[in-house]
Amino acid sequence: MNSLLKNIRIVCVRPLYGGNIGSICRAMRNTGLEQLTLVNPNPDLDQIELRKMAMRSLPVYEQRVVVNTLEEAVGDCGAVAMTSGVDGFYRGHSVSPRECAPDLLDLARSKPVAVVFGPEDKGMGLEELEQATHLLRIPSHPDYPSLNLSQAAMLCCHELYLASGEYEAPQEQTDPADHRQRERMFDCWRDSLTDIGFCPEEKMDHMMRGVRRILSRGTLTENDVKILMGIARQTSWAAKHPLAEPDSD
Amino acid sequence: MNSLLKNIRIVCVRPLYGGNIGSICRAMRNTGLEQLTLVNPNPDLDQIELRKMAMRSLPVYEQRVVVNTLEEAVGDCGAVAMTSGVDGFYRGHSVSPRECAPDLLDLARSKPVAVVFGPEDKGMGLEELEQATHLLRIPSHPDYPSLNLSQAAMLCCHELYLASGEYEAPQEQTDPADHRQRERMFDCWRDSLTDIGFCPEEKMDHMMRGVRRILSRGTLTENDVKILMGIARQTSWAAKHPLAEPDSD
Repeated sequence: MNSLLKNIRIVCVRPLYGGNIGSICRAMRNTGLEQLTLVNPNPDLDQIELRKMAMRSLPVYEQRVVVNTLEEAVGDCGAVAMTSGVDGFYRGHSVSPRECAPDLLDLARSKPVAVVFGPEDKGMGLEELEQATHLLRIPSHPDYPSLNLSQAAMLCCHELYLASGEYEAPQEQTDPADHRQRERMFDCWRDSLTDIGFCPEEKMDHMMRGVRRILSRGTLTENDVKILMGIARQTSWAAKHPLAEPDSD
Repeated sequence: MNSLLKNIRIVCVRPLYGGNIGSICRAMRNTGLEQLTLVNPNPDLDQIELRKMAMRSLPVYEQRVVVNTLEEAVGDCGAVAMTSGVDGFYRGHSVSPRECAPDLLDLARSKPVAVVFGPEDKGMGLEELEQATHLLRIPSHPDYPSLNLSQAAMLCCHELYLASGEYEAPQEQTDPADHRQRERMFDCWRDSLTDIGFCPEEKMDHMMRGVRRILSRGTLTENDVKILMGIARQTSWAAKHPLAEPDSD
């Protein structure tokens, strides 16, 4: 099956700054999105800034669609999500990108889904916001709630990408060690602490509980246990086979 | 209690571009963060770009700490999270900002916690990454996994802000309607559909199930129910009191 992300359309209404559009292109490629539509963009969009910020995502810009009105940009869309900014009538009805990303991806199964961003200076107008099926509000601090356009776009793209389930987290290179491997490793540590004379035998149980606590905070892999066991064994060996005679004084 | 976010320190190692630092300042203020430390920044950091991107967050930049080494930047930190980029030895041990944000905030109760970002061109060096207590990897698409520095910072700041629980989502302006209110509204709709002769009485049960389905997809508030009830009542009234005589033809 094709990725649902291919059916998500990022729509920028009356964008002013080329740097932001370039950053949005990069954010889109960082998150598997391809469709970019610009509604009535600033004719003097700074192309040098745009290219500088887009880096290797310039193909997204080159394949953009440019239209004159919001209606043209989203006419075929099954859902139209708009960022509502921080004030106004609709505020109480907005949802966060995280809350609504699964819904938008589900709707992208049948028709394109638009995520619409307003111009840098004023955001979307009320008449435009009225056309939204989903009003997005990005959680932000009340002292300075207004996000940069491309930052807002990145947060939305990132949520859609995570919700798509396409990201595969890198795996640990080896499996977790099993109980037997861990216990054998702790036995070696106990032996090595005895061999180096770290503490009297009657305090060893207490000391080993400390060592167990330190080494059990994360999941130990088979590789981890091999390293730890190797250190303990070599310590025991070295304690019995000094590399050099101690100084005579 | 003071916000734990005040104990989070954003550390930028050898940053090259003023625009990115300005964007990071804005992202920090958007998410309630204050501590910015720059390690050996480019002495020619573009101040015009920086101010343009920082907008009203310039105080974050003005209160920055500048040091020469990573050690100076994070020496007092109880945890040091670093973004590990996309390649290399440590990749298999990294966690996403979302996974580790609660842990970092918890650690910020006792000591400052650093979130460290490398330079734009090369990311952090291996010797630096070795000093991390947490390796962060931002989920991104394998076709173009490399994020812009300030976008990466925003995603991390945003996760910390959400995990802090300080964000209060805007509330619906009225409470959800109760069952009685909804049923009274549906009664009014049934009456009005009868009054306008929308469908024969024997099909009304079926039609009302459709109306219920359409109007029950989201939670109806008390205000919503008032609007819907008002429409139905006025419809019934209008059906019985035509505004004008129908045309004679």
